[in-house]
Amino acid sequence: MHGTGVPIATPFDDDGSIDDDALTDLVGWLEDAGIDFLVPCGSTGEAPLLTPDERVRVVETVAAATELPVVAGTGHEGFEPTLETTERAAGAGADAALVVTPSYYGSDDEELAAYYRDLADASPIPIYLYSVPKFTDHALSPDAAAALASHDNVAGIKDSSGSLESLQRLVRLTRGEEFSVLVGSGSVYAAGLAAGADGGVLAVANVAPEVASAIYRADRDDRPAAARSHNADLVELNRAVTSRYGVPGVKAVLALRDRPVGTPRRPLRPLEDDAVADLESILEETIDG
Amino acid sequence: MHGTGVPIATPFDDDGSIDDDALTDLVGWLEDAGIDFLVPCGSTGEAPLLTPDERVRVVETVAAATELPVVAGTGHEGFEPTLETTERAAGAGADAALVVTPSYYGSDDEELAAYYRDLADASPIPIYLYSVPKFTDHALSPDAAAALASHDNVAGIKDSSGSLESLQRLVRLTRGEEFSVLVGSGSVYAAGLAAGADGGVLAVANVAPEVASAIYRADRDDRPAAARSHNADLVELNRAVTSRYGVPGVKAVLALRDRPVGTPRRPLRPLEDDAVADLESILEETIDG
Amino acid sequence: MHGTGVPIATPFDDDGSIDDDALTDLVGWLEDAGIDFLVPCGSTGEAPLLTPDERVRVVETVAAATELPVVAGTGHEGFEPTLETTERAAGAGADAALVVTPSYYGSDDEELAAYYRDLADASPIPIYLYSVPKFTDHALSPDAAAALASHDNVAGIKDSSGSLESLQRLVRLTRGEEFSVLVGSGSVYAAGLAAGADGGVLAVANVAPEVASAIYRADRDDRPAAARSHNADLVELNRAVTSRYGVPGVKAVLALRDRPVGTPRRPLRPLEDDAVADLESILEETIDG
Amino acid sequence: MHGTGVPIATPFDDDGSIDDDALTDLVGWLEDAGIDFLVPCGSTGEAPLLTPDERVRVVETVAAATELPVVAGTGHEGFEPTLETTERAAGAGADAALVVTPSYYGSDDEELAAYYRDLADASPIPIYLYSVPKFTDHALSPDAAAALASHDNVAGIKDSSGSLESLQRLVRLTRGEEFSVLVGSGSVYAAGLAAGADGGVLAVANVAPEVASAIYRADRDDRPAAARSHNADLVELNRAVTSRYGVPGVKAVLALRDRPVGTPRRPLRPLEDDAVADLESILEETIDG
Repeated sequence: MHGTGVPIATPFDDDGSIDDDALTDLVGWLEDAGIDFLVPCGSTGEAPLLTPDERVRVVETVAAATELPVVAGTGHEGFEPTLETTERAAGAGADAALVVTPSYYGSDDEELAAYYRDLADASPIPIYLYSVPKFTDHALSPDAAAALASHDNVAGIKDSSGSLESLQRLVRLTRGEEFSVLVGSGSVYAAGLAAGADGGVLAVANVAPEVASAIYRADRDDRPAAARSHNADLVELNRAVTSRYGVPGVKAVLALRDRPVGTPRRPLRPLEDDAVADLESILEETIDG
Repeated sequence: MHGTGVPIATPFDDDGSIDDDALTDLVGWLEDAGIDFLVPCGSTGEAPLLTPDERVRVVETVAAATELPVVAGTGHEGFEPTLETTERAAGAGADAALVVTPSYYGSDDEELAAYYRDLADASPIPIYLYSVPKFTDHALSPDAAAALASHDNVAGIKDSSGSLESLQRLVRLTRGEEFSVLVGSGSVYAAGLAAGADGGVLAVANVAPEVASAIYRADRDDRPAAARSHNADLVELNRAVTSRYGVPGVKAVLALRDRPVGTPRRPLRPLEDDAVADLESILEETIDG
Repeated sequence: MHGTGVPIATPFDDDGSIDDDALTDLVGWLEDAGIDFLVPCGSTGEAPLLTPDERVRVVETVAAATELPVVAGTGHEGFEPTLETTERAAGAGADAALVVTPSYYGSDDEELAAYYRDLADASPIPIYLYSVPKFTDHALSPDAAAALASHDNVAGIKDSSGSLESLQRLVRLTRGEEFSVLVGSGSVYAAGLAAGADGGVLAVANVAPEVASAIYRADRDDRPAAARSHNADLVELNRAVTSRYGVPGVKAVLALRDRPVGTPRRPLRPLEDDAVADLESILEETIDG
Repeated sequence: MHGTGVPIATPFDDDGSIDDDALTDLVGWLEDAGIDFLVPCGSTGEAPLLTPDERVRVVETVAAATELPVVAGTGHEGFEPTLETTERAAGAGADAALVVTPSYYGSDDEELAAYYRDLADASPIPIYLYSVPKFTDHALSPDAAAALASHDNVAGIKDSSGSLESLQRLVRLTRGEEFSVLVGSGSVYAAGLAAGADGGVLAVANVAPEVASAIYRADRDDRPAAARSHNADLVELNRAVTSRYGVPGVKAVLALRDRPVGTPRRPLRPLEDDAVADLESILEETIDG
């Protein structure tokens, strides 16, 4: 996978059910903005708050709505549920699976490596590792990831640690392998690409797909200063929809961009008005600024 | 709920499927040892590693095998999946539901209180709060729990923080409410009961049900020194099957006690031989000592 | 060391200098309330905020004011500064030294064991280990502590983890050694004593010395239910002067008890009025209740 | 302050005392390698393991040995000790003071801001904020730092979080202020400079001063690709002397570079032979590669 991927938000209607129409519409809007692939059922897509059936339905809807590659988030805490969802996602049109590190029991790198190896052996579609310590409290080490890179069915990693050191080491340690290093944090997208990453999967790409795409294209066209400059424009908005307001922030900004996707599921909660006003001013600076 | 509950291990057969016969057999053995209620699909039962359908099946099997009360672990990360599993567990024979705090998105006490309130409103069976910071990285505060205690359909809490301060505060803050404080850490069972807790749900009760039950009975019969002494006997074994070796430790000790329940699911892994030998010697000291 | 020790607050005058008279007065008040030994320059005494010279002066003042044993907090981050302060404290009248685990560089148990061993070899007075994970982010394991217990010049441990499991294991693992297990958390004082601990060093003993002493005496006189009951009375006040309001809380309550000790040093800050009012009502419940 | 600063290692002789000659020699070697300023008594200089008198002596020796600017680490846990050491460091020749965030009592940004403001008011030399969450478990927020930037006597920040987001935000939020943003993590030096940082203070600059200096010069000469490339060369060595082997790693590599500085102070410990061999091979790749 190369380029800018979007861990697409999952729209809910007023009853709290998945809103397929809004999802299809969102896919089209993101495509028009120049993004390169779609990642339904990621953390931003509230995957942990969906039932397995709902996950499959989201993947189906996204796959039906686009010609772009689809990398479906299929990770649960356990091997069997993860394999089952991976198989169903493949059937629903996913080209690859993004599998978050299990975290409940505090697995270490050795346990995770065995888990991923078994999963890659069994999966009908390629596996992307997914390390997101903000949510799982464990960063998969670049060394552990690199040891998996030679597996035929391990296609890459989404590294959402926000650590440029980690991205640099991943690039260096997997050089020569068919293994995509995807940046998972909007603040280090340009820097990660400059260091050799293949693309990114960014929450902020939901709400500013044109800017995220511009970063990638500037890097590809050998204009790193332009990539950096676009990325600098994105830092506050990126922070707003990740560490500051999280998924509810993504959903609030999508509404501000005339792509309403409903409220997040519990235990997440919609933002208060002052947070929305804050987001509105950050958005204006980012898009018009 | 009063007395000693067991967060019963989930047996798997050689194919990795749920072993209903072994589960039924385990229920009987635990009942004979004097335990008071059963908690299928808890953390020790590898609930996060089961599919929703498997969870329901485990509850069904346990409920069919016993006349004791059944408190089913029904918590997922999101409200909708949790409510769905809770309803299905009720249909499968659960008398109440144990709902772990969602943790992926780092919810705070205010979000968790709203989540539990909505769930208690909707659930067909009473809800027990479940705080287990070792796994979720968040301890539900006694104040937040106490604020939920007046809800008709919130029946109590399993507090697995290991903190006697937390248990003391829970007892004090919920005095006068219909609200059971259940100790979730084997090392503070006697002390928690002496402080006014109503019972416990203890991983170690899987492997030493006779000792766990003896602690409760000694406390109830107003022999706190005996309760403390039984508990002191259990400290090393408790630590071995929790912080040291976890669920794989529980399963290894059950095999040593002639109740084989298969290996844990991935990403958990069976113990190495030296760990099993260590457990064997700890078990001998505990049961025979 | 046996009985109830007080990690005595360090009074400052209006200029921010150590107030020797207030300190002497506080020592006398605590003695009259029945406490058994004094611990100047602990965490509650703002030791990390004092210069080495000031630490020595505090020890001198306390030692001059009392016939009770004096255990001086002498730990810095490094071996050389710690040894120097330990030697000076011994010269100033300390009977033993309480040495907190260094934490800046994230030392593990093996490094800490070597550190303590070297220090005990060199120190003119016996060393008490001091584990306070709330401040240092590392709990010295009972196993590591027990391995040090046989050293002639290691006299015991203050365990402020709040974990009854840890206290139980320390008692069991050091049985037969000349090694005092001292409870460092007010919420588990009675339970720790019932489990075999030798005494305690409690922040809350600054502000409720009569209750802390009563807990110890009830345990010693084989009235564990009375010890537990006294301890239950202390839980809210203990929490208020530790996790909730910390050292500024201790100082505010001492003022309420007519033992003014000035404000805490920066970066600590005096409490706001509403926090003081909260403490006042908790104090009333505790002492008069 | 601009350019590359070195948080210079503190050499000890065989008795464990400060080795002034080795320190003077090290200063000269670093100067010859092109570094721009010196930072005695930082985390890499084992400042927390020195007595206050020793800190002053280290500053004196460094100031006497160089014409370059000297930024002395003067932070202790408390205001009074920190101010005292700052005044003494100024007297010993320091041009500015680097003050780490106090961490023992878990101060928040509001407390830290008040602390720094008071210190800047009182200090005879300009203050640099120093945020190093790896050691203190708290990252000073860019917002809190920016609010201090307008103070006449607050000169900048050393941000050792390793977060490029934090550096980007610091640059943006302090634009227009006389405030230097200094990169504290070797892995993000080039990226931080490209984002607008003024320089860096890097542990790795002790052992590869020529490479660290080359990164800065390439950036200044508008050759960002060269800066990035130099930085990529440094990633493994940087990691080796920080997260992997820490200060003992710095000291071991200095010996390999024929600048022996003795062993680290306890609780730190000299590296085992296999770690030194590992460092040797990483060093060879970095310097000759």
